[in-house]
Amino acid sequence: MIWGGIEAGGTKFVCAVAAEDGHILDRTQFPTEAPAPTVAKAVDFFRSASRDLAGIGIASFGPVDLAGGRITSTPKPGWRNFGIAGAIHDKLGVKVAFDTDVNSAALGEGKWGAGRGLDTFLYLTVGTGIGGGAVVGGRLVHGLHHPEMGHIRVPHDGSFAGVCPYHGDCLEGLACGKAMEERCGCRAEDLPGDHPVWQEEARLLSYGLVNWIATLSPQLIIMGGGVMKHGGLFPALRTRVAALLNGYVPIPEIVPPALGDDAGVLGAVALCL
Amino acid sequence: MIWGGIEAGGTKFVCAVAAEDGHILDRTQFPTEAPAPTVAKAVDFFRSASRDLAGIGIASFGPVDLAGGRITSTPKPGWRNFGIAGAIHDKLGVKVAFDTDVNSAALGEGKWGAGRGLDTFLYLTVGTGIGGGAVVGGRLVHGLHHPEMGHIRVPHDGSFAGVCPYHGDCLEGLACGKAMEERCGCRAEDLPGDHPVWQEEARLLSYGLVNWIATLSPQLIIMGGGVMKHGGLFPALRTRVAALLNGYVPIPEIVPPALGDDAGVLGAVALCL
Repeated sequence: MIWGGIEAGGTKFVCAVAAEDGHILDRTQFPTEAPAPTVAKAVDFFRSASRDLAGIGIASFGPVDLAGGRITSTPKPGWRNFGIAGAIHDKLGVKVAFDTDVNSAALGEGKWGAGRGLDTFLYLTVGTGIGGGAVVGGRLVHGLHHPEMGHIRVPHDGSFAGVCPYHGDCLEGLACGKAMEERCGCRAEDLPGDHPVWQEEARLLSYGLVNWIATLSPQLIIMGGGVMKHGGLFPALRTRVAALLNGYVPIPEIVPPALGDDAGVLGAVALCL
Repeated sequence: MIWGGIEAGGTKFVCAVAAEDGHILDRTQFPTEAPAPTVAKAVDFFRSASRDLAGIGIASFGPVDLAGGRITSTPKPGWRNFGIAGAIHDKLGVKVAFDTDVNSAALGEGKWGAGRGLDTFLYLTVGTGIGGGAVVGGRLVHGLHHPEMGHIRVPHDGSFAGVCPYHGDCLEGLACGKAMEERCGCRAEDLPGDHPVWQEEARLLSYGLVNWIATLSPQLIIMGGGVMKHGGLFPALRTRVAALLNGYVPIPEIVPPALGDDAGVLGAVALCL
């Protein structure tokens, strides 16, 4: 059987078809434009990639209405209340599964990546935004809605107002790629490794990690996303988290996704398996 | 069948025997002294309360080693690394179940109280300390260790250093009953309802609530403990949480425990059912 996955991100869409073992057979990616042309490109890819698609998983930026298959209160123009799951189902006529990008990535890492064999772990992404998905007791966390972990509040010195249109200085507002760009006037990937903003980034993210460790007690924390490609962040975070927790509780390992840049789209595939 | 429960708190022990429907048949409570005399009092109670005890659940202050039945890195004199589950089992010879006080209270509220029928909800206590237990997908959260929710970091103005011996200004360090006492020079229950510290208390706790909502997306938040008996806190928290979340995600109800002051000890009973 061949399965499809769409990593529907705020910046880009990644589409892939994969075998049941997570082996990617074909993939494409393109920038996220307005909903109609973006969905049309995804549909074209799946039509040409396989005639025997058993289902498609959509790993979407959020917040989403899981039952309705819709993106809800996004600040992204045109996407608010767009029913992406229905749009894909209508065009391709296959079973569609739908969850947040980060919940999906957690599921994918649990199935084929760093989270194999664990029942309680986190997948975090620090990129354009900050988000987290969690597997707890072997299952994705849903609850009333779904986690929106990037929007926690952490200590900061008030010198930067933050970029989150809903909260200003939530963790995402202070520490996402867009926030780094606004602080420094250039993209995070273009910043020198010894720029002081990396220290501030590690400081802010370490508060987030401590809060998630205290709340969920994960066996492992997997951190992906563009900002995490800065090599110095992982050791800086491990050191700061240990200092902040101060021996009170055990500390999980903090590692990059084993699926690398495929964590998102393979997570989408995992949703429909 | 008759079941026993011990709510092993840092300030007091509550022991009860109950029927399988959660009806309490007998109970006692006494201050927490050193481990040996405290355990002896609990054992005396169970010996006189029932000859047919099917099991005892222990809902313990933490942090604990769940597998080892031990309290671990507590700052409480004499209790560090004390194997309470083994001590009770050795004296009474019945099956003993063991979890944190707040995980147990969450379980009890799920079985007989405010959380009935829900699969993802939180139980928080704000008393001598601050703690949280969570049922996620119908199961208690354990993971690498167990949640220690009171020890998250939240924004604050730095004017008070906090009382947590491990972290200083974690949420527990800033907002537990002991912190209020140190801020004001008298016990929280003796403070007038319009004392400005209640506004600060609501401000700090609302950051905690927002962080737990963003991380776990609970269907309900149940808040118990001595500090929450101040009538003004619930409405103040609901207002502040709504303002902080600013419409980004749905907000769960925030309610007192339906089991009232029995939430802890009935949670202990629920552990061994």
